[in-house]
Amino acid sequence: MTTLTQIGKQAKAAARKLASLDTATKNKGLFSMADALIANQQVILTANKQDLANANEMPKKFLDRLMLNEQRITDMANGLRSIAQLPDPTAEIDRGWINADGLQIIQRRVPLGVIGIIFEARPNVTADATGLTFKSGNAVILRGGKEAIQTNLAIAKILRDALTQIELPADAVQMVSDPGHESAQEMMNLTGYIDVLIPRGGHGLIQRVVKTATVPVIETGAGNCHVYVDRDAKLDMATAITVNAKVQRPSVCNAAEKLLIHRQVAPTFLPVIAKALIKHGVQLRGDEAACQIVPEISPATKEDWDTEYNDLIMAVKVVDSLDEAITHINDHSTHHSETIITDNLERGRQFQEQIDSACVYVNASTRFTDGGMFGFGAEIGISTQKLHARGPMGLSQLTTIKYEITGNGQIRK
Amino acid sequence: MTTLTQIGKQAKAAARKLASLDTATKNKGLFSMADALIANQQVILTANKQDLANANEMPKKFLDRLMLNEQRITDMANGLRSIAQLPDPTAEIDRGWINADGLQIIQRRVPLGVIGIIFEARPNVTADATGLTFKSGNAVILRGGKEAIQTNLAIAKILRDALTQIELPADAVQMVSDPGHESAQEMMNLTGYIDVLIPRGGHGLIQRVVKTATVPVIETGAGNCHVYVDRDAKLDMATAITVNAKVQRPSVCNAAEKLLIHRQVAPTFLPVIAKALIKHGVQLRGDEAACQIVPEISPATKEDWDTEYNDLIMAVKVVDSLDEAITHINDHSTHHSETIITDNLERGRQFQEQIDSACVYVNASTRFTDGGMFGFGAEIGISTQKLHARGPMGLSQLTTIKYEITGNGQIRK
Repeated sequence: MTTLTQIGKQAKAAARKLASLDTATKNKGLFSMADALIANQQVILTANKQDLANANEMPKKFLDRLMLNEQRITDMANGLRSIAQLPDPTAEIDRGWINADGLQIIQRRVPLGVIGIIFEARPNVTADATGLTFKSGNAVILRGGKEAIQTNLAIAKILRDALTQIELPADAVQMVSDPGHESAQEMMNLTGYIDVLIPRGGHGLIQRVVKTATVPVIETGAGNCHVYVDRDAKLDMATAITVNAKVQRPSVCNAAEKLLIHRQVAPTFLPVIAKALIKHGVQLRGDEAACQIVPEISPATKEDWDTEYNDLIMAVKVVDSLDEAITHINDHSTHHSETIITDNLERGRQFQEQIDSACVYVNASTRFTDGGMFGFGAEIGISTQKLHARGPMGLSQLTTIKYEITGNGQIRK
Repeated sequence: MTTLTQIGKQAKAAARKLASLDTATKNKGLFSMADALIANQQVILTANKQDLANANEMPKKFLDRLMLNEQRITDMANGLRSIAQLPDPTAEIDRGWINADGLQIIQRRVPLGVIGIIFEARPNVTADATGLTFKSGNAVILRGGKEAIQTNLAIAKILRDALTQIELPADAVQMVSDPGHESAQEMMNLTGYIDVLIPRGGHGLIQRVVKTATVPVIETGAGNCHVYVDRDAKLDMATAITVNAKVQRPSVCNAAEKLLIHRQVAPTFLPVIAKALIKHGVQLRGDEAACQIVPEISPATKEDWDTEYNDLIMAVKVVDSLDEAITHINDHSTHHSETIITDNLERGRQFQEQIDSACVYVNASTRFTDGGMFGFGAEIGISTQKLHARGPMGLSQLTTIKYEITGNGQIRK
């Protein structure tokens, strides 16, 4: 078996080649990989059947994510083709200037180099992540969940062969063939080879990577998101946004988990909003004031305020002021997405300025925090850290800068 | 004694206040701190004498860095005043657009929050780092070397009092009063309170922080920098740049440590360049070919190619081609700054494109990698990592982004 250090070396060598490819060549690679997925879909489906058979004890929701069919393979191929249509971030020159000594300084966008992705049993990540890292000129080392290993290896082999066929480096895409805990651990410590590691998956996986990795990590997808209904909110708008943010897709990170409501409007608003949420199957928990207003709300515990449910559960808190709402959110949020419903300009502005989260909304659903919705064309994840990338990460977040400085003999005095 | 968690909490609270200050108020704070340093210089000098007395066994070079006098305090004050003149990065809106749903999305620059700085016995860092972090709207937790503790505490108290006097949060600047190893270790693990930790000092300190910290770190100041003299170089330019890059200030990270020279010109160039370097007191080490051409060059070991001397030592290697030079540099560099001396456009371009370092020069000294030289006005360090910041870090590298999204009731379909 190839060791991880070997994989790292190969990735580094491939990354150097990828960094000098022009956009047209990279797009050719993306189309070649897309065509190969379609041409070899039977190979993928056979491998996937094997994975599904091995995993038949797992919950239905899990199996649904693991399962591929012709449509899903077509979607993966179309994903690669649509990434080919996006602008190449490494074709950009951010800025340039002449310094006081007459040096011409150009600030260019360049690939990060080698990107590691640790993910769970969603085989589509193999193709999606490859598309984004390849277009931005990076080599990728993928390490997927053990339940999807046959599917992942089959897809990775097809993508690699498609690159080889048009004389591009196959090591642009490498799948770790041993999906055990040790390989994940080794990847987290592959200093010198991995420029950034992006974990994709559940809270447990992400926290383990953030806490133990010594290579640089981008933390994604932790979403304890808040809706705050201010005293000047419109009731119908507040209800529609709260319901949308909670129930439209409760399992994702930009779904709302908490509802804060101004004491002045709580007696009028909370019964209406609670009724709408309960109608959609939401289980409500709340502080004392909330429970008093709506008896169907059960008491929340201290832990509730810090919990991301990813489910049809919402905790409700009545607050005395906008300041209290802001403080509560800054103290308990994962700093992903929060929204205020208000008709007051000044209060909306204060909320946006003082909330310390990646995406701060006025009068809109938190569900819009998404690379596609933002118009980035694609996303590799939603960063909840402040360093390097914050919020939806598109292609340009997979790049760094480099200064190219040209002189005619300048020396420093 | 205040615990580090307590310090972290106080910093977080101060950071929230700092984030909403306008530029004029922050500049007022900088001037107030500058004035206070001058007004209280006797207090600083007294504390400094105490530190110097305790450290009298240390080498002269060390004591020179530790020692303050009236001129140095004036320089510190002027440093704060000049930071006040620089543009406020958090006053910038990077871009804004309307998405397909009619949401107005504004991408703003905002402070990172709380910045930790671990540094050695250079008390001027206390004022310099405070100026940069304060102007960019961040709170700072400083932890200096134990030999400068009295001076550092005196300066920090003066800066804090100056902020209090004009009703700004004193906790914008906190100095850890226990300069032991434990406090450094605790700071490296102050997750949830420190948004980024920047170590400033020697190689040992930086590596310890990078390897053990669980809070996000920016690695700065590792500089195994290369000069490559190509076959088309002008001899006088090659000599002037090599001498400047090596001897103008050998102790700093942007000084050159390695000289690569194309085999075709080595017999003509190397004797001239070696003579000039030796005249400046440089001890030369080299590969076999270099030693054969210039007998004064002693044989280099394998370790030499990866060593940052920070001293009047340079290792010389003769290479067969531009490709060999590029590969050698990418394999051994710390990815800080490298330069090629060439009159050939295509070869200069290839070097700049294929070298994977923060600053890649053609026909200029590596000594220009510096926030001041680049025109950034000030710098907190030179990042040798790719994530978040690369190369000289000015005020804007102490910020992150935030999306402020305003709608009129949008929900996701």
